[in-house]
Amino acid sequence: MGEEVKVFGAWASPFSRRVELALRLKGVPYEYIEEDIYKNKSPLLLKYNPVHKKVPVLLHNGKAIAESLVILEYIEETWKNNSILPQDPYEKAMARFWAKFIDDKCWPAIRKAEWSPESEREKAMEEACECLKALESALNGNKFYGGHTIGLVDIAANFIGFWLSIVQEATERELLSAHKFPLLFNWSHDFVNCGIVQECLPPKDKVLAIFKARVAAPSN
Amino acid sequence: MGEEVKVFGAWASPFSRRVELALRLKGVPYEYIEEDIYKNKSPLLLKYNPVHKKVPVLLHNGKAIAESLVILEYIEETWKNNSILPQDPYEKAMARFWAKFIDDKCWPAIRKAEWSPESEREKAMEEACECLKALESALNGNKFYGGHTIGLVDIAANFIGFWLSIVQEATERELLSAHKFPLLFNWSHDFVNCGIVQECLPPKDKVLAIFKARVAAPSN
Repeated sequence: MGEEVKVFGAWASPFSRRVELALRLKGVPYEYIEEDIYKNKSPLLLKYNPVHKKVPVLLHNGKAIAESLVILEYIEETWKNNSILPQDPYEKAMARFWAKFIDDKCWPAIRKAEWSPESEREKAMEEACECLKALESALNGNKFYGGHTIGLVDIAANFIGFWLSIVQEATERELLSAHKFPLLFNWSHDFVNCGIVQECLPPKDKVLAIFKARVAAPSN
Repeated sequence: MGEEVKVFGAWASPFSRRVELALRLKGVPYEYIEEDIYKNKSPLLLKYNPVHKKVPVLLHNGKAIAESLVILEYIEETWKNNSILPQDPYEKAMARFWAKFIDDKCWPAIRKAEWSPESEREKAMEEACECLKALESALNGNKFYGGHTIGLVDIAANFIGFWLSIVQEATERELLSAHKFPLLFNWSHDFVNCGIVQECLPPKDKVLAIFKARVAAPSN
């Protein structure tokens, strides 16, 4: 009997893609369930994530786990092949530090820089650039945050690797460029060109259409 | 030769106390360095936590780690006695989920409920109560979140166990009471009455004086 592994996600959500990417890196077969998170959350999603009522949720043999970084740690501990975290406690702490930094600082700063009203934009762009600068330094000369292979921080940074360039195309506001952050720019190129990453990414034109619609109707 | 374990903290900070409590639970001797985080951060703090420039920082044999939840995981992995996390991956994920919930949701909601202007207070109080309700349910009939002993979630929730009752006394706004949240109230009582927790807590009168000064000068 195979085990039950289900992912409740949303196709455009970078957080859902994190979970799928980790499972694929480990070679774990799973069933993907698309949620309509804006208009019609399913009773199962509300049952499995009653606190946040958000995707992604991982369901493993009847047990539900929410919060993408918590799920990634669970995946790492449950399926031990193809590690996404270093074994050394200090290196592991550094990976957790940067993954948390990406969620707590980079994600809100980049959203604000790309989508805030013009009056707040200059400051927001500065803050987002500070975040990207810190993140670039954390590469430490490696191809990926995980070294030669993709690890927790690369997975957490997926929205910087893929979504950010599409947002930039829609808003015509450039944060990440080869000129400003050459190492991080190269990372984003290497990341999205991994075959296993490409398997998990949504079609670029569909994402671009969403962002362009948002530019056209900025109150949404 | 003993190992070097230093904690850079601030006496009134619940986040600094988390690190001290975890080290004491493990019986790890450490040197504590008080930082003047408001007026005069030390060059060492800026060196060891250049990204956030905040306490707490753990320095272990020359290696610095920031972010209290990241530090707690490092402590757990480095000193394996007296576990603060369950061994089972799912139970561990649940502990991480609730610790993250405490930081991401409870901490900002409680701060807002206690300190926001009157016009925003009713909604903020409702949100904070929702958080406490969820946190109460997570006790699952146990004395501590760690079961019979203090674990990661108890440590993370220290500000609800100790600081919240003092804030309530200063602001005269009650969030956590025996009437509203009897199980969580009992938990807070049991938590602050643990000898090892009491070793880590600042003097109540000093904390109360800070909060009363803030009530008297609400613009601060």
